[in-house]
Amino acid sequence: MSQTLVYGDAISTYVRSVRLALEEKGVAHTLVAVDLVKGQHLEEAHLARHPWGKMPAFEHDGHSIYEAAAIMRYIDEVFPGPALMPATPVGRSRVNQVMGIVESYGYPASITHIFIPRVLVPALGGQTDEAEIEAAKPRAALFLKEIGRLLGEANYFGGATVSLADLHVLPVVTYLRATPEGLALLAAAPSIEAWLGRMNERSSVHAVMPPS
Amino acid sequence: MSQTLVYGDAISTYVRSVRLALEEKGVAHTLVAVDLVKGQHLEEAHLARHPWGKMPAFEHDGHSIYEAAAIMRYIDEVFPGPALMPATPVGRSRVNQVMGIVESYGYPASITHIFIPRVLVPALGGQTDEAEIEAAKPRAALFLKEIGRLLGEANYFGGATVSLADLHVLPVVTYLRATPEGLALLAAAPSIEAWLGRMNERSSVHAVMPPS
Repeated sequence: MSQTLVYGDAISTYVRSVRLALEEKGVAHTLVAVDLVKGQHLEEAHLARHPWGKMPAFEHDGHSIYEAAAIMRYIDEVFPGPALMPATPVGRSRVNQVMGIVESYGYPASITHIFIPRVLVPALGGQTDEAEIEAAKPRAALFLKEIGRLLGEANYFGGATVSLADLHVLPVVTYLRATPEGLALLAAAPSIEAWLGRMNERSSVHAVMPPS
Repeated sequence: MSQTLVYGDAISTYVRSVRLALEEKGVAHTLVAVDLVKGQHLEEAHLARHPWGKMPAFEHDGHSIYEAAAIMRYIDEVFPGPALMPATPVGRSRVNQVMGIVESYGYPASITHIFIPRVLVPALGGQTDEAEIEAAKPRAALFLKEIGRLLGEANYFGGATVSLADLHVLPVVTYLRATPEGLALLAAAPSIEAWLGRMNERSSVHAVMPPS
């Protein structure tokens, strides 16, 4: 069997989304550590795989890709196991829209402008920019409102079953919820809280996102 | 037949990509004007369709979506006409990766930090931030290098035929090329220049992107 390699740091949300997709498909993989805090994503070895210095990069069967969503779609298509995309065009469009919302709006608001300044910056000895967090709160609230609207009455963004969108949202909302601001925003988003509860029971989540 | 509506400004790159997809599929559509320069994308009527105040928004058969890539995938799936995604998982992964590269890196470098300050800002009476453009040039160069690498020897990002990636890249590279900086960068990217020449012969491009 050919090796499946994920290059990245286990704490990265996009590394987590890709590894969750592999776990949901039941695919064994090797995580090749690229330490974010040490800045290894900006070293030559990683830039050769991902010239933008982001993560993850991915290799399977001699095929190299980067960009998390492209990797996740590839994983869903080439490996056996449960389909991670809905069966209808309208269902797939919801999944695709949610994935786009995570990348364009959800990640910047929740991670770049709330989780990182609130948790990561002080952990590394820096000073939180409170104005940055304050400015991001309405966008994080809109993110939760929009994914709540698109989830609707369904159990998962894929409908009755888990989809790539669920795996794209989960690491972002989990980090958002680890901040006091995110916790307050999620208290006002009960359908997303309930969805989080369902997701956190999954063995894929236990494998990839152990409680810290 | 149900109406197909695109809400946006004809000059927006993402509106152009969605309309190119409709043209390539041979689908008649109505462009509902949302004037960027007048700020109509931030008015209540548009925010009801797209709460992030971006464009385009899309409606077909009672189904509303936003996020350009999600709309384009939906268009490819529900309408007859030529397939705009390759037939193999590896081929699709290239298209998906290129679409991700446009959104994560190509658009910000080429449009946000070169085209807008060089062309749009002075056209509206403002002052170009030269340092902003200078800082973006290496990233625009890397964008052209990476899409050139992924294009390889093929005629299109889809391989032998046009794909959603071609339609996602084209409006961005066209605007980049309308700046002196972009023109110089493209002179160093002959395979992308040749691809541009092929794309600009298409009737879809004549319909959606008339030379200004």
